[in-house]
Amino acid sequence: MPNLTLPLADARRLGRELFTAAGAPPDEAALVTEELIEASLMGLDSHGLLRFGEYANWAREGRVKPGAPAAIVHETPTTAIVECGLNFGQVSAAFMVNLARHKAAAAGMACVVSRNCGHVGRLGAWPQKLAEQGFLGLAFANSTRHGHWVTPFGGREGRLATNPLAYAVPTSGQPLVMDMSTAMIAEGKIRMLMHQGKPIPPGAVIDADGRPTTDPQAFYGPPHGWILPFGGDLGYKGFGLSLLVEIMGGLLGGFASTDHGRHINGFCLLALDPDKFCGRARFQELVDDLAAYVVGAPPLAEGGQVVLPGQLDFRTRARRLAEGLPLPETTWRQIEQAAAALNLDLGWARVGFAHRLS
Amino acid sequence: MPNLTLPLADARRLGRELFTAAGAPPDEAALVTEELIEASLMGLDSHGLLRFGEYANWAREGRVKPGAPAAIVHETPTTAIVECGLNFGQVSAAFMVNLARHKAAAAGMACVVSRNCGHVGRLGAWPQKLAEQGFLGLAFANSTRHGHWVTPFGGREGRLATNPLAYAVPTSGQPLVMDMSTAMIAEGKIRMLMHQGKPIPPGAVIDADGRPTTDPQAFYGPPHGWILPFGGDLGYKGFGLSLLVEIMGGLLGGFASTDHGRHINGFCLLALDPDKFCGRARFQELVDDLAAYVVGAPPLAEGGQVVLPGQLDFRTRARRLAEGLPLPETTWRQIEQAAAALNLDLGWARVGFAHRLS
Repeated sequence: MPNLTLPLADARRLGRELFTAAGAPPDEAALVTEELIEASLMGLDSHGLLRFGEYANWAREGRVKPGAPAAIVHETPTTAIVECGLNFGQVSAAFMVNLARHKAAAAGMACVVSRNCGHVGRLGAWPQKLAEQGFLGLAFANSTRHGHWVTPFGGREGRLATNPLAYAVPTSGQPLVMDMSTAMIAEGKIRMLMHQGKPIPPGAVIDADGRPTTDPQAFYGPPHGWILPFGGDLGYKGFGLSLLVEIMGGLLGGFASTDHGRHINGFCLLALDPDKFCGRARFQELVDDLAAYVVGAPPLAEGGQVVLPGQLDFRTRARRLAEGLPLPETTWRQIEQAAAALNLDLGWARVGFAHRLS
Repeated sequence: MPNLTLPLADARRLGRELFTAAGAPPDEAALVTEELIEASLMGLDSHGLLRFGEYANWAREGRVKPGAPAAIVHETPTTAIVECGLNFGQVSAAFMVNLARHKAAAAGMACVVSRNCGHVGRLGAWPQKLAEQGFLGLAFANSTRHGHWVTPFGGREGRLATNPLAYAVPTSGQPLVMDMSTAMIAEGKIRMLMHQGKPIPPGAVIDADGRPTTDPQAFYGPPHGWILPFGGDLGYKGFGLSLLVEIMGGLLGGFASTDHGRHINGFCLLALDPDKFCGRARFQELVDDLAAYVVGAPPLAEGGQVVLPGQLDFRTRARRLAEGLPLPETTWRQIEQAAAALNLDLGWARVGFAHRLS
């Protein structure tokens, strides 16, 4: 079955119509659409157009509350806890980016944490926005207990989510954007491998009895298995990093890891202003110098090269901006179903697709 | 050859006499001694008594400048750059801990970075001190170019040091203390394995031609090989974390990764006050809850258990407090040589050792 390619303008209209029909104010619909499109552009398809249908369903079902205002429930010049009201995570995260940026510009640094935050999507997007304005940004995202697929090192049952962390740093060109899970693999990726009939990379998961497996079926059971923390034999490092994400993303804001929240992510954003250290110009010069130095290492593999965090994603972005966004047939079907449930006519889009399919 | 065991009181007198003879003011000699002893107590022997002789030599040779005052060269309410004057890294780090703590208590959070800092020893010690006073602490330490043993992911030449990061979080008992290298193995550990005639764990290093090896001799050459970033096939994560350490530990303070400094570590300390978030009591309650939850996971291996970051080190500490500090014969010989070069009579200690050897 051929995959579709969606021009950017069509994707934009599609998302806005869908989320508006699902109850989002136009500005929020536009914001969520842009962030999902941006994730697809950067090659992170699992956090891109794939989510259009799911997000629309969530809003229709009341799991997400479009229009819910963000409210600062606790605040100091450098810190804040933001009640997100179960709005789209992107709406909340964008609010928190602005808050962190203003605080860091005034106070040198800031740390902002969420309560009742939705799915923030591509985690690296948020520190990236800080870096694009000259700040050093770090982000942490935990999940509520239903997402606890990942074992603590040495354990045989999940106690943590895949708990990603991300950071971004300004350079004279595109920022460095690092975005990594503290687990060996994302649950969504295992699902994808199962659908493709492919094995899971060795050392990433165990079955319900604690035995290593590469079989997605053995992983999903029932009874289902668990994902291991990042690091293999050194997995105590991934576990330790995951605990840090849990503490920053969940605990600082007052949420217990053992609670079952209605939200999705606990989100924490840290911003530092290089102007309050060695100075913005000097800092950027030093990051450029570091980037050139590491990229200048001879490649380990013939024809290989050292790439900076985010560099491949920015290349994908340039290509997809020109070529359009890939849209698997199944994703399109889900979007159609979500639209139908909202009595939304996507006739214009379907025609476009049929044309491209022929 | 039997290893010696040194009572705590003897270790304390030994370090103080040695560092005072090497030119350190009594308070600095005591501080450095306590930190090295603490590292040995916690089981991190590579950063403990092993360093007594080396540190004394460094001070005698002028590589370390005992008594050099720490000077704040740039400061805002939340940030500071501290000129450490090439004093012992422990003296500088202790100064920076106090500075970060006071700033964080007043402003909610703080980030303090070093210039011309010596070897800070056990990295986890510094956030641990913050956690013991109720703060959440993070620390990063890079090294100057001579320490660039670690390849960027996909590269065949060192561009970064083993760049550790550490954090500590208060609980109602001992704090969580995570202390990890962002590389697969420390260079010092490879040296130890070579002396023991043991192989390097697979996947940790390459030889000068970029081939994987487990042979310490092939690693040291000449020409010498390189250490891989933490993570194996997912080593881009270790590389990304290492870049973060480099940026926080070196670049923020204004030091270029491509420069050859006379110092050893670039040190960065971040402190957050939970009272400016969900409140100190609530935060500690949540960390306790999380700790109990993860430790409650059934063990993966028969008879195993999940342990929290730092937990094994605190157990070692309790044991060694009772049993004394292990002191390999070779370490004692180095201390004797360092003392001889300083015309320091360690007669009292030698007698003690002979007694224990018999």
